[in-house]
Amino acid sequence: MHSPSLAVAPADRALDAALRRKIDSKTKPLGALGRLEELALQIGRVRGSLTPTLANPQLVVFAGDHGAAKAGISAFPQDVTWQMVENFLAGGAAINVFARANGIGLTVVDAGVAHAFGERPNLLNRKVGVGGTVNYLEDAAMTAEQCASALRHGAEIVDRLAAAGCEVVGYGEMGIGNTAAAALITHCLTGAPLADCVGRGTGLDDAGLARKQALLQQALDIWAERSDDPLAVLARFGGFEIAMMAGAMLAAARRKMLVLVDGFICGAAALVAAKLAPAFLDYAVFCHASAEAGHRSQLAALQANPLVSLDLRLGEGTGAALAWPLVRAACAFLNEMASFESAGVSEQL
Amino acid sequence: MHSPSLAVAPADRALDAALRRKIDSKTKPLGALGRLEELALQIGRVRGSLTPTLANPQLVVFAGDHGAAKAGISAFPQDVTWQMVENFLAGGAAINVFARANGIGLTVVDAGVAHAFGERPNLLNRKVGVGGTVNYLEDAAMTAEQCASALRHGAEIVDRLAAAGCEVVGYGEMGIGNTAAAALITHCLTGAPLADCVGRGTGLDDAGLARKQALLQQALDIWAERSDDPLAVLARFGGFEIAMMAGAMLAAARRKMLVLVDGFICGAAALVAAKLAPAFLDYAVFCHASAEAGHRSQLAALQANPLVSLDLRLGEGTGAALAWPLVRAACAFLNEMASFESAGVSEQL
Repeated sequence: MHSPSLAVAPADRALDAALRRKIDSKTKPLGALGRLEELALQIGRVRGSLTPTLANPQLVVFAGDHGAAKAGISAFPQDVTWQMVENFLAGGAAINVFARANGIGLTVVDAGVAHAFGERPNLLNRKVGVGGTVNYLEDAAMTAEQCASALRHGAEIVDRLAAAGCEVVGYGEMGIGNTAAAALITHCLTGAPLADCVGRGTGLDDAGLARKQALLQQALDIWAERSDDPLAVLARFGGFEIAMMAGAMLAAARRKMLVLVDGFICGAAALVAAKLAPAFLDYAVFCHASAEAGHRSQLAALQANPLVSLDLRLGEGTGAALAWPLVRAACAFLNEMASFESAGVSEQL
Repeated sequence: MHSPSLAVAPADRALDAALRRKIDSKTKPLGALGRLEELALQIGRVRGSLTPTLANPQLVVFAGDHGAAKAGISAFPQDVTWQMVENFLAGGAAINVFARANGIGLTVVDAGVAHAFGERPNLLNRKVGVGGTVNYLEDAAMTAEQCASALRHGAEIVDRLAAAGCEVVGYGEMGIGNTAAAALITHCLTGAPLADCVGRGTGLDDAGLARKQALLQQALDIWAERSDDPLAVLARFGGFEIAMMAGAMLAAARRKMLVLVDGFICGAAALVAAKLAPAFLDYAVFCHASAEAGHRSQLAALQANPLVSLDLRLGEGTGAALAWPLVRAACAFLNEMASFESAGVSEQL
């Protein structure tokens, strides 16, 4: 039995027929707005309205450190996690630029970075573990209590955003080593071969990739009580940032917010969320098809087809921030486009 | 010999190495912004700057009628062309919604619609032919003089935008029957089989598609002086809106503006432009992979890989308007992202 706070009710289909009629009445050939028409239907359904709004778009970046990062699974040193958090706070990272360019508010969360930031006005301190997770080559990355705490913190952050009028939320992450964690989660929850789930992350060469694969196989081999229970997998291999993101995703769905899912790491959190509450997928928009190999396994398992594919492999929520204008445009055409009747345009012969 | 006004100088590669260094110094793994890195390089090259701007984005929609439209090549009656122009002027069409949502200025041009709009504050009257083109099942769609006039009008419109500070311009079109014209142009200029170039346009059924193919084959068969000269093909089958767009594209490239190319119809104009001046492609960003079959033949001939693929088949410039935020984001990261050095972030191990 999962905690009731992880439950999500399916989106209500009551307005589907009326939404489809409204979409089809717009001054365009039937179906001519393609993916944006599917999106408009989803937005109307999630928001429960023929004139839906997606007010106050927000992106939350969760940062956390991984005990396994020091074992040689990443091309970058672990210090880059806290250094990049500083970069987020200074406004100089890619996600800062894209959020500014597209009118998205940004919240940065320390979910468990191995660094003392002190009191900082723009950083939410939600450290679940002060030194990052435990190295899963030795033991579980986190305890069940830490995992539950991370899920709860994620939900509380979203509850606060909802109270401030946010109706659409995207997620991003930073954590050296987290493509490895995401690969393990993807393997355990989709059943895809480990080799199909492991990629080069931020830039491993062939030897580095082979070492990463061998280490991750070892991490699986030493897990005596192996399971495909999503919370067990999450606690065993997850990062605090991934667990917090999963909690935030479920909370957003409960609050009827549209959820913008970025690439591979966010996809791992979405996998966990969907295993815990399949109806979560009603609220999720998969934004970007990552260049990271394991993303295909996730997308196949979730039957998801991302909006764009730009060969990004950066994380931070960049794919979600870049796709947001497409989602906004889908909502806008549903609300603002004239109908054949209102515009006096002749219909198909 | 082509008129000198159709010439385009290649974009200067002098800054390429410095632009690549700047892109690689940003706080992200090498290449991690994928397609946006290629775009940033292109933007810097086109604008001739390490700190390029893309000020005052504009979209110009050209409308024109096709004599062949009454022969049964479209699912919609010809009157829809002028009715949709009225919809553009009233702000109710998809392109109005997307341009507003993404901060793009919109200009609507009557390139030769078979309708008298009278004096309208927001419509540029550049009618090349009052009643639309001639039916190419009977004779050439336009005379060489009309074709030259359309190219010139397109260039003048862009010159005016450039004088007003526009540095990036997208194009859209409206013209019942213009997927047929684009199919014929694509076939003649790429050599792809006609059947690969003809699609359902705004919504033909199987019988309609077969009729369209047969009529277009007939249009080719009766052309005694058949040629693959781009201006001859354009005059034989083109719409005034396609010819004006081709002139506008070349003029924008001459003025070092970035050119946002929409889907299939704009692609036909881009084909003409690239045949007249291959360096045009240096300035072109292919925005959307259309659902219309013939677009693949165009893209293969132009070795172009559009930014997004959203199953749109609407035209109006919607694909360009929707892709603009991605282009803007590429320019923004080049200008605004911190470097490893400036942010104090450790580089790859």
